[in-house]
Amino acid sequence: MKVKLALLCILTLIVALICSNVAVAQANDPLPSWNEGNAKQSVLAFVKKVTTPNAPAFVAPAERIATFDNDGTLWAEKPMYFQLFFALDRVKALAPQHPEWKDKEPFASLLKGDVKKAMAGGMKSILEIVMDTHAGMTTTEFEKIVKDWIATARHPQTKRLYTEMVYKPMLELLAFLRANGFKTFIVSGGGIEFIRPWAEAVYGIPPEKVVGSSIKTKFEMREAGLVLVRQPKINFIDDKEGKPVGINAHIGRRPIAAFGNSDGDLQMLQWTTAGQGLRLAILVHHTDAKREFAYDKGAEKALKEADAKNWIIVNMKDDWKVIYPSAK
Amino acid sequence: MKVKLALLCILTLIVALICSNVAVAQANDPLPSWNEGNAKQSVLAFVKKVTTPNAPAFVAPAERIATFDNDGTLWAEKPMYFQLFFALDRVKALAPQHPEWKDKEPFASLLKGDVKKAMAGGMKSILEIVMDTHAGMTTTEFEKIVKDWIATARHPQTKRLYTEMVYKPMLELLAFLRANGFKTFIVSGGGIEFIRPWAEAVYGIPPEKVVGSSIKTKFEMREAGLVLVRQPKINFIDDKEGKPVGINAHIGRRPIAAFGNSDGDLQMLQWTTAGQGLRLAILVHHTDAKREFAYDKGAEKALKEADAKNWIIVNMKDDWKVIYPSAK
Repeated sequence: MKVKLALLCILTLIVALICSNVAVAQANDPLPSWNEGNAKQSVLAFVKKVTTPNAPAFVAPAERIATFDNDGTLWAEKPMYFQLFFALDRVKALAPQHPEWKDKEPFASLLKGDVKKAMAGGMKSILEIVMDTHAGMTTTEFEKIVKDWIATARHPQTKRLYTEMVYKPMLELLAFLRANGFKTFIVSGGGIEFIRPWAEAVYGIPPEKVVGSSIKTKFEMREAGLVLVRQPKINFIDDKEGKPVGINAHIGRRPIAAFGNSDGDLQMLQWTTAGQGLRLAILVHHTDAKREFAYDKGAEKALKEADAKNWIIVNMKDDWKVIYPSAK
Repeated sequence: MKVKLALLCILTLIVALICSNVAVAQANDPLPSWNEGNAKQSVLAFVKKVTTPNAPAFVAPAERIATFDNDGTLWAEKPMYFQLFFALDRVKALAPQHPEWKDKEPFASLLKGDVKKAMAGGMKSILEIVMDTHAGMTTTEFEKIVKDWIATARHPQTKRLYTEMVYKPMLELLAFLRANGFKTFIVSGGGIEFIRPWAEAVYGIPPEKVVGSSIKTKFEMREAGLVLVRQPKINFIDDKEGKPVGINAHIGRRPIAAFGNSDGDLQMLQWTTAGQGLRLAILVHHTDAKREFAYDKGAEKALKEADAKNWIIVNMKDDWKVIYPSAK
């Protein structure tokens, strides 16, 4: 009996040791959702070089700025930008207060469910929808509207919450960079106030580290107290040439690493890599029709330049073990 | 001999103990340049309440936002804003390239040394001077111009470098707040790109935590490479009603503590204190004609509201042991 107990103890010990070794091995890989390959190795090598004291490429923590596009880089963007789904849901919710929308494009088509026809007007239609659904309320009211929507709305195809369509490998990358002293920023063409309410919980990125497009706000004294009212006027478009401008305005330092996926990110990647010293530019390429979406449209210029300049292209199909985190 | 040695040892030990106790006592006071009084006690009590876990007023570190005006709150602002001294020096430096200035106000008066006459046009004159001296170059060039100036230019009265006219008690306050998990931001009516080049070294505040007035910039591809060119167009005035707007745009969260000194800071203090939970609003009152400057002008409304709402008023003469750090 005693011998059996001793054997059991030894066996337990061995199993525990093996388990802990496996755990340590996993813990040692900061990017477990990334397959071994050029993309992963490039990221690991870059971080090691800029964080090793006295190394030629060493960068002080204060200057370790990393900027991330959001749509298509941190979360999916198909069949259309998720913020547009939000805007469409707002049109439906607000329709009773806007009887004139029944006869007014792009709202009329939208309310009939014909998104394609509504969007036929291109950027002009989108701006009209955004202005009429994103302005007129206080910043506090808008934050609540976004929070309520993001907590409940689901993607038409995957039926997931939109925040469950963030890319798990990119969440690991954000955490890995921050663990190495990087300051991680979102630099999105999307609305800054649409991203802020959930970016801290989902990405670990607080509101002050979100850069995005914005409308103007106005400080008003109301009976109920002081408010900032969202105005139907564009303040800033944080896209294409606007991204380096937004980075300068908001961050005041040139990034040493930038992550994008489309032509809207091209100037951010150019601006980042044009700085002195070691730089990292990564373009996420949507190649996985089965697990996500496969498309080059809207990224043609960026893919061409990435190829010409030897930026790192992440092939989602080959480089990522998983796309999304486990759904709740 | 042995007894003498033993006595010497004991004596040394006693002296060492006394010295270390004094050192500990000093280290325990995070605000050694502040005299005991209501202002100091209010700050200490506030920080204790919002940082004590499970206390009713506890605030999570992510939400511990503190915003500081710059001119008159973190450094002096008399006989005029230091950025105007910078602009005047730029007018002199650029005059050979602008022969037309000899006959054009406000430049003609400035070049004759008649600052008062030059400023007679008020904000319009100031804007003309700022536009002609702060725009036209790249952001990198402007940063170098500011760095060179701030490293050498001296205040006409004190003969100190302008960065030696920061307030030592406020430097201690900034460090104390950060040591308690606060994120400290500058929210200045002054130019964001005029403050950023030296704010990290002087205040410990990095570029991304500086909010200020700005002109527009444009992304350009030049032969020498990519640049952001400063345009002679106002982008944003971060003053009065603009301060809550700038705070929202840049930080995305309402401060729990705000520090100002003039009517330009009133709306920031109102916005801060209008938030739910415990808030700290501090107004620096310039009462020390001997060591700094004494004036209420431009702060009348803020002083009146601070009095009515029981905000903390720092009486520089009584509350601060020293004003400036030791000059180099």
